[in-house]
Amino acid sequence: MSATAALDVHPDRLLPADPSLRSVARRLYDSVKDLSIISPHGHVPPQWIAEDIPFRDPTSLLITPDHYVNRMLHANGASLADLGVGRGPLSDEDARAAFRILCTNWSAFRGTPVRYWFEDELGPIFGVTERPSAANADAIYDQIAAKIATPEFRPRALMDAFDIAVMATTDDPCDDLSAHEQLAQDSSFTRRVVPTFRPDKYLDAALATWNTDVDRLGEVSGIETGDYAGYIAALEDRRRYFVAHGAVSADHGVIDAGTDILSTEEATRIFAAARSGSVTDDEATALRRHMISEMARMSCEDGLVMTIHPGVRRNHHIPTFETYGADVGCDIPIAVEYTDALRPLLNAYGTHPNLHLVLFTIDETVYSREIAPLAGFYPSVYVGVPWWFIDAPEAIQRFRAAVTETAGFARTSGFIDDTRAFCSIPARHDMSRRLDAGYIAKLVVEHRLPEDEAFEAITDLVANNPRKVFKL
Amino acid sequence: MSATAALDVHPDRLLPADPSLRSVARRLYDSVKDLSIISPHGHVPPQWIAEDIPFRDPTSLLITPDHYVNRMLHANGASLADLGVGRGPLSDEDARAAFRILCTNWSAFRGTPVRYWFEDELGPIFGVTERPSAANADAIYDQIAAKIATPEFRPRALMDAFDIAVMATTDDPCDDLSAHEQLAQDSSFTRRVVPTFRPDKYLDAALATWNTDVDRLGEVSGIETGDYAGYIAALEDRRRYFVAHGAVSADHGVIDAGTDILSTEEATRIFAAARSGSVTDDEATALRRHMISEMARMSCEDGLVMTIHPGVRRNHHIPTFETYGADVGCDIPIAVEYTDALRPLLNAYGTHPNLHLVLFTIDETVYSREIAPLAGFYPSVYVGVPWWFIDAPEAIQRFRAAVTETAGFARTSGFIDDTRAFCSIPARHDMSRRLDAGYIAKLVVEHRLPEDEAFEAITDLVANNPRKVFKL
Amino acid sequence: MSATAALDVHPDRLLPADPSLRSVARRLYDSVKDLSIISPHGHVPPQWIAEDIPFRDPTSLLITPDHYVNRMLHANGASLADLGVGRGPLSDEDARAAFRILCTNWSAFRGTPVRYWFEDELGPIFGVTERPSAANADAIYDQIAAKIATPEFRPRALMDAFDIAVMATTDDPCDDLSAHEQLAQDSSFTRRVVPTFRPDKYLDAALATWNTDVDRLGEVSGIETGDYAGYIAALEDRRRYFVAHGAVSADHGVIDAGTDILSTEEATRIFAAARSGSVTDDEATALRRHMISEMARMSCEDGLVMTIHPGVRRNHHIPTFETYGADVGCDIPIAVEYTDALRPLLNAYGTHPNLHLVLFTIDETVYSREIAPLAGFYPSVYVGVPWWFIDAPEAIQRFRAAVTETAGFARTSGFIDDTRAFCSIPARHDMSRRLDAGYIAKLVVEHRLPEDEAFEAITDLVANNPRKVFKL
Repeated sequence: MSATAALDVHPDRLLPADPSLRSVARRLYDSVKDLSIISPHGHVPPQWIAEDIPFRDPTSLLITPDHYVNRMLHANGASLADLGVGRGPLSDEDARAAFRILCTNWSAFRGTPVRYWFEDELGPIFGVTERPSAANADAIYDQIAAKIATPEFRPRALMDAFDIAVMATTDDPCDDLSAHEQLAQDSSFTRRVVPTFRPDKYLDAALATWNTDVDRLGEVSGIETGDYAGYIAALEDRRRYFVAHGAVSADHGVIDAGTDILSTEEATRIFAAARSGSVTDDEATALRRHMISEMARMSCEDGLVMTIHPGVRRNHHIPTFETYGADVGCDIPIAVEYTDALRPLLNAYGTHPNLHLVLFTIDETVYSREIAPLAGFYPSVYVGVPWWFIDAPEAIQRFRAAVTETAGFARTSGFIDDTRAFCSIPARHDMSRRLDAGYIAKLVVEHRLPEDEAFEAITDLVANNPRKVFKL
Repeated sequence: MSATAALDVHPDRLLPADPSLRSVARRLYDSVKDLSIISPHGHVPPQWIAEDIPFRDPTSLLITPDHYVNRMLHANGASLADLGVGRGPLSDEDARAAFRILCTNWSAFRGTPVRYWFEDELGPIFGVTERPSAANADAIYDQIAAKIATPEFRPRALMDAFDIAVMATTDDPCDDLSAHEQLAQDSSFTRRVVPTFRPDKYLDAALATWNTDVDRLGEVSGIETGDYAGYIAALEDRRRYFVAHGAVSADHGVIDAGTDILSTEEATRIFAAARSGSVTDDEATALRRHMISEMARMSCEDGLVMTIHPGVRRNHHIPTFETYGADVGCDIPIAVEYTDALRPLLNAYGTHPNLHLVLFTIDETVYSREIAPLAGFYPSVYVGVPWWFIDAPEAIQRFRAAVTETAGFARTSGFIDDTRAFCSIPARHDMSRRLDAGYIAKLVVEHRLPEDEAFEAITDLVANNPRKVFKL
Repeated sequence: MSATAALDVHPDRLLPADPSLRSVARRLYDSVKDLSIISPHGHVPPQWIAEDIPFRDPTSLLITPDHYVNRMLHANGASLADLGVGRGPLSDEDARAAFRILCTNWSAFRGTPVRYWFEDELGPIFGVTERPSAANADAIYDQIAAKIATPEFRPRALMDAFDIAVMATTDDPCDDLSAHEQLAQDSSFTRRVVPTFRPDKYLDAALATWNTDVDRLGEVSGIETGDYAGYIAALEDRRRYFVAHGAVSADHGVIDAGTDILSTEEATRIFAAARSGSVTDDEATALRRHMISEMARMSCEDGLVMTIHPGVRRNHHIPTFETYGADVGCDIPIAVEYTDALRPLLNAYGTHPNLHLVLFTIDETVYSREIAPLAGFYPSVYVGVPWWFIDAPEAIQRFRAAVTETAGFARTSGFIDDTRAFCSIPARHDMSRRLDAGYIAKLVVEHRLPEDEAFEAITDLVANNPRKVFKL
């Protein structure tokens, strides 16, 4: 690989190879490529926008906080420490060294969406024209550093440049949402940033931190959480607080999709055992599953859309977790079951008009077998688009092929970027639009969908489905 | 979507986009498109044919009894009651209203096989030229209503028009098969309608109705079913009755594929416990699995082909079941295991020359992992084609790609429409022929199969495999 | 099918149909098609090479020992005995009869890789120009028989003709490796044949033969295997012996991927129970899983690459096993779990610089869900290419699409032929090269990978990855 190779960001990238497909796909893509970005689930810190904080350096912007990048470099021999993970602000020297690791390992990312997103950032956003390599790593670092020092690269300016109309953050139920408040009261800020209620750690009594967290829930809500009734009331209170601050959804990261409902007596008993530190693992699991159904019940009342992201074994490599903490690239998916697991919740609330339940998976086997059939019957259920490891071109095409025939386009969520990598947001949404255009073009060319409806379908996926599904 | 958009039923629909593939696929398709339909498994009531009953109205023909349609409309906001489900004959006003719901939601079916089949019925069969919409719903309703009032649209005339050479129905073991008898004795009827032995409810002692059903089995067979030996004898008797009335297969809808064989003593003991109402769930499961192996043993003796359709959680939404009954669209698939589950049956009977065992699945993961390897060793095992949710273009192509490399074409069952939607039968078989032509065309163009053999292969799939596998 | 149809072995076989894809794929393939074959895992007996034994007849070369062929002929009605299975050397008459069974059933292999490989052997290697059929079976038999009687068809000459640079055999830990020794000391032999340490039967105390085998392990190593410490020491000794004789890897065929680590006390206790014949099934399983982690520990010390092939129910049809023995075509895959199963091993050794752990699967569902994410974090983990039933064109393309986006090309193993069918080795490697060229061509034409990097990527897959992963 030559050090001076050009960075190729082709206008037809990701469109199908066949000329007849490409031609239709290009027209479909052109019809939606300039539509505003709607990002109903993601992990950008709201403070970045509220305070319009300049990005510090290319490494802390593009590498250190992004576990998609870290994990691949780690697999190919880098230490997480050398990438800045778990270290706080890096010296210029160390930041440059980390950036060189990335550029030197450019070929390890061949065929991955991480490289695709990077190139779509480096070229169109940062004006990089050479393919990264060991030889030009410093020059590219300098070029990006110079850009992010300018006002045009502050978060709010980028949000305008990226045309992000709506962006959801992910927030702790005890968060005071002051950043969101600040944005709401700032009349100069015309975009929409909404919080998301993410109560995982308050619902899992098996966690060592649970008792402390439930205490804090009581303090923040002003509702005593010493017993189950108070705990429920406090959660309801915080959800109302989030709704009042613009939240449209609650997100649930769970190891399984279980939703078995306990009697109030049994829930009260287990809650008390958990508060006194004597809960068993099975009881904690039972309470957690019950609480997912409780969240659905509350959604029927307060209208928060409910998203579920199950099936990831977090911190698979414990020595890495102990050294670097969570979210550093060693979370590994497992198989997940939805049909039986969700049955209690869906029998109780699945036809309630207020409930929107968006089901995500990394276990692709459930798309055609479980999620699409559920979304093809329950008016509350929507198929979440591919997430995390499978937010990638081939996987997204497999997803559309797996769910559309059973659930149609109307029962899918629209794209979710799910990222804390702010500058990758346009690339991720654009990738999704290109791939959906390709899928729909195939339907047109194979005479499975008239072309006029194809244009409606792609617009629905980009603009209408996310607004409808997330009540925006 | 314009209300006056044309209904596009293109001659090349579903054929591959690539011109070289399409050209070969078209020739392969042309070679089989006019072959008679062989439908060895389906759900059309035999009385329709025996008595040549005219269809009542477009809604009761196309919507109300078809759970493929109902579930999607329900997911998109319609009530099942408004579609006529569970209500008996609809007034003209209500039938029209239901039809309007379908037409108004036409876009919700984009990219689904349900829409594909509908369009292939509306255009070629009913002469509809406009795409359904809220605006033309009544006109299309009138057009179909006028057609089905004519003699050419009576079931027997359609069976001729569709060129259905053989059609299997699905029948209760206690059915007297009088409709089949009537057809057999009618020399003016030259097509073949055969019953299928479907004993599910007689084999599952966990069902509340089981004891009553086993009583009736005794009455109908004239063999006392008070003990296990009589129960077996009565089932054998009814199978003989079905064989004598033309049956070629027995069908088994089961939650899992288990076939563990009990000793006669243990089976006798559990049967007695079940008859006295004291059976446990585990015992009932053990008896059910044992009885599947017993069905295989009987097939070795009487020659009935055995088809297994496992892995669907029936009536997932219990409130819907309680209001509307079964088969209304809320059955949801689950994962299924075949390798270990079928081992007892296959060790006992898997190499018996009389046994044909056709394995269906909705869980696509088992095609390459379990079913194709089983069919690639056991001379009794055939791979059933995609069924229900996965009887759809992309899924059928995945199926061929998943099983052909391990089991070849020869070990697959040929197409099964599995439908009670009579007018969709030609569309379903035609879809299958087009898709198989596309798959085989790819083998030709990629020089993996000589073209002369490709024509043999597609003819086998359409005409020879179903006759061989179902002993027709 | 005409008896005189030509055998078509087209230069563009397996390349994509689309002209733009095919053009790029052809250039990529051309760049690697003549590179030496590296075969780091297979089952050719080393004696064949060491003693340069002439092949006996076409049937014993191409049919009898190849369970890929036998199973398909058995499924289509042949008896294994008629194919020579379990019978020792066949008479000329019987060998010809078996060959006729193959040729007569040629159409049953349509669309399978077995037929593809056969044709790639029959044409390019044996000069057959007609498609096999009942009519020309004897003539083709004669043609092959005449060829293998010549010096050019002795194993060493073929190894040169096939340009096999490195070939690994699979060997019992107690084997003296005399064939490898003989080759090493033969200066006229310039190719590399290395043994592979395959200890399965020594690690599974549930096997009836285990105690005898562990006794022999003690005898061969000269280390007393009466207690656990001696057993471990004896295994370490034999691994060192293999390393000294050129081994680069140890292979593990296991029913599951479990690796739970026992305390030394518990391992010692279970080992003692097993030696005294009083081990329970659960204890034997616990010891087996522990020993897989012990193998990883030893690999960290002696550097042997560790390959794992889990998830096959061996000898599914017990009557066949009892008549014909193992490896005759009735092994059937089952679902496998890797994420949790491998966690103990990976937590202990997953970041050790000496460990290379190559994970194979027949259960395709784990590629995107488990194996690629593991290989995308752990520097020790590599994704093994498709194996056995899924070493086939469509499956290999699914594999690349499933793993590349999460793990990149760099974390995959390179091709493994895993065969005892010596003459199929070039066809298998060539098939892999063609398919990888097709996959990479798609990335190029869809502007997902620059063309100069595509040439590097295909060279890596063919030449560099296997050398790096297997430390060759």
